[in-house]
Amino acid sequence: MAEPQPFMEEQLIESTLEEIRTALKAGRIGDAIAALTRLHPADRADAFEELDGDAQSTILPRLDIPATADLLEELEDEEAADVAQYMSTERLADVLDEMEPDEAADVLGDLPPETAALALAEMDDAEEVIPLLGHPDETAGGLMTTWLVTLRPEETAAEAIDKLRHAELEEDGPYYLYVIDDADSLVGVVGLRDLVIADPKTSITKIMDPEVKYATTGIDQEDVARMMAHYDLSSLPVVDDDGRLLGVITVDDVVDVLEEEATEDIYRLAHLSDADLSIDSPVSLSVRRRLPWLFLNTLTAMFAAWVISNFEGIFEQVAVLAVFQGVVAGMGGNAATQSLALSVRAIALGEIALKDIWRTIAKEVLTGIIQGVSVGIVVGFGVYLWRGNPWLGLILALALFANMLVAVIVGTMIPIILKALRQDPALASAVLVTAVTDSVGFAIFLGLATLLLPLLT
Amino acid sequence: MAEPQPFMEEQLIESTLEEIRTALKAGRIGDAIAALTRLHPADRADAFEELDGDAQSTILPRLDIPATADLLEELEDEEAADVAQYMSTERLADVLDEMEPDEAADVLGDLPPETAALALAEMDDAEEVIPLLGHPDETAGGLMTTWLVTLRPEETAAEAIDKLRHAELEEDGPYYLYVIDDADSLVGVVGLRDLVIADPKTSITKIMDPEVKYATTGIDQEDVARMMAHYDLSSLPVVDDDGRLLGVITVDDVVDVLEEEATEDIYRLAHLSDADLSIDSPVSLSVRRRLPWLFLNTLTAMFAAWVISNFEGIFEQVAVLAVFQGVVAGMGGNAATQSLALSVRAIALGEIALKDIWRTIAKEVLTGIIQGVSVGIVVGFGVYLWRGNPWLGLILALALFANMLVAVIVGTMIPIILKALRQDPALASAVLVTAVTDSVGFAIFLGLATLLLPLLT
Repeated sequence: MAEPQPFMEEQLIESTLEEIRTALKAGRIGDAIAALTRLHPADRADAFEELDGDAQSTILPRLDIPATADLLEELEDEEAADVAQYMSTERLADVLDEMEPDEAADVLGDLPPETAALALAEMDDAEEVIPLLGHPDETAGGLMTTWLVTLRPEETAAEAIDKLRHAELEEDGPYYLYVIDDADSLVGVVGLRDLVIADPKTSITKIMDPEVKYATTGIDQEDVARMMAHYDLSSLPVVDDDGRLLGVITVDDVVDVLEEEATEDIYRLAHLSDADLSIDSPVSLSVRRRLPWLFLNTLTAMFAAWVISNFEGIFEQVAVLAVFQGVVAGMGGNAATQSLALSVRAIALGEIALKDIWRTIAKEVLTGIIQGVSVGIVVGFGVYLWRGNPWLGLILALALFANMLVAVIVGTMIPIILKALRQDPALASAVLVTAVTDSVGFAIFLGLATLLLPLLT
Repeated sequence: MAEPQPFMEEQLIESTLEEIRTALKAGRIGDAIAALTRLHPADRADAFEELDGDAQSTILPRLDIPATADLLEELEDEEAADVAQYMSTERLADVLDEMEPDEAADVLGDLPPETAALALAEMDDAEEVIPLLGHPDETAGGLMTTWLVTLRPEETAAEAIDKLRHAELEEDGPYYLYVIDDADSLVGVVGLRDLVIADPKTSITKIMDPEVKYATTGIDQEDVARMMAHYDLSSLPVVDDDGRLLGVITVDDVVDVLEEEATEDIYRLAHLSDADLSIDSPVSLSVRRRLPWLFLNTLTAMFAAWVISNFEGIFEQVAVLAVFQGVVAGMGGNAATQSLALSVRAIALGEIALKDIWRTIAKEVLTGIIQGVSVGIVVGFGVYLWRGNPWLGLILALALFANMLVAVIVGTMIPIILKALRQDPALASAVLVTAVTDSVGFAIFLGLATLLLPLLT
């Protein structure tokens, strides 16, 4: 096999980049292009992104139309739109014609409206793309492609194969063929393998499966992904509200959606707003996305400071309280983060049912009690041994218990409440939860200490 | 279409459960089984899991072999092994024969060794499963199935289709056929569609693609998933170290891996150990998995308390320091969490290259400086206005700046270092990072205050 070892993509991309840069420097543009196109299209896009603007604009006009279409399909949407803007309208239209309709629609959606309109007017297959433009990116309609081969129930297997032979589809095909009736309504699905092994004269009605899972256009991409994962579907047909077949979503798009949604959840739990941020993002973008969250955190931190300031006098009398107040707030935060992660993930994976909510909360409360008692006893006893004051230990233990119990309840409930309000369950959850556990933690600990002050001094 | 609306699975499962429970109570076991088997196999497993032990053991022996095989394939691995233990060896062997070999191997791997050995001895297709037993679950070898149709380069398209017609495969079968030479080495791949539309007399050599992406058995499932996502592959062949084809991984397995790995990252960042924990887990399991992490957090919180205790005397003189110390530690923690999430996610998605590390860190340092200056100025000035002491504001601003800078460096570096040490980048990162930002935050703030004490009183 001529193939390099798998997972060597990075090294391969690096060495190809070297080759391209050397060739460009020596004016051997043809060699640079040959090196680039030798890569798998997915790697080619990664390599192209690494090149500087000069190199990109030298190479781009000299790539042929199919290679340019491959490149735009593999680039991130915004980068693809950037690249598209540097092409002549005529060339851009040719490239868009060559692309998968759903990818072409994504690029058109990110272009300035005039540029998009001019390109559409120039395209040969505009009718494949136009129906896709109306659907938001993050819905089933935005994910689907209109490239599909439809069958009729009365056709034979041989006719279906003949249809397939004459369909102009990308190499990688869908491997399910959908069957529609006279009103274009979806009535069944035929696997390519069943078609191949069927007697050529069998009618499609006999080999199709009438139980088709499908999505309507407006459904959120996360629900689409969850459904395809749940039923192990490699493609999912999309219908309009009247049940007419409009397109199909393939599993590779769903893999991207799952990665994107997981990234979004991770970021949101870490006080970051957008999944399009990465560690490679420019500093200006990074700061723009991260700083607002830090200011929000600042507000909640200052609120917690205000809570403490109400007890300020006590530190002059019992300085040791300043040493341990952070333990109560911090452990509440840690316990809450655990519940939060479980709750957010359960909602994302569709594992939480609203009717089970009380059972879920009851379990978390019990968990919180066990954890609060355990940590409370260990810390309370430890601090008693360290500082020799049993009352300090007792106050710490009680405050830890109370705050860790509040923590699991808040950590579990906030995402559920946000979901019920049709908000993203992960968004702002972490900020809200920390705000609560900090403020409650300080208030309980310092409040108890104030009540029992004579025992501490 | 007889199909209910999509995404109504939950309601469908609920109403079916009602029906099953009512039927069982009335002794109509046949009706209960009919209701259960009416569900899609994926939903059937979800419903079965919800039934109590009595109901499960009433239904299980009365399901036919294919339905039992479907059920075991869809259940979680451990639950499947539990169910398998209640069957007679003979029945279990029949069920395992009916299952996909990779799923059968997973069940066998979770059974007590004697039970597994007895079942294997009784199986007809043990030779399909035995080669899979040696591979750890989380590697390419553990993910692959041995159910595949292989072609020879010299065969014709018609012969290949004939082979396919006689192969006993599950309905949903792979849509790529792999081509091997006399030494069983992988030499190419043929898409089913290309096979169908080719002239029946064409030889496979002419239609196969010799550039096949593949994995070797020992490769981690996360790398497999990343590779299949990167190249949009719907299946990936697995070869041994000598390049001999052993099996194939299908994209539906990879979707599960991606969800599992994302859950694991989210949990680990939230101080939780295992992806098999969910919000529905029994309290005992939940506590067993969560409490050890909380005790680890307790240790780091007590260390931070010890740092503060070195400055204890200062609170008797300047109680206000106790009010604001938490802001410095907390904001450091928040800034670190952002960097940590970006770093962990970039490693998981393979977006971070070791050669770019210095550039990445330089960017994070610059981001940290901008964020530290911004938050420092706002908080410092705000506290000056609130408390009327410019020196307190200045100390806070300086401490915030320093701690937030430390935070982004530590948050970015710890996952990278863990990865370089071949550990999971997410594991313990959050604990380590918080320990650093807490301790450093308190030390810097209280240290500066001690130095500038005369200005504060």
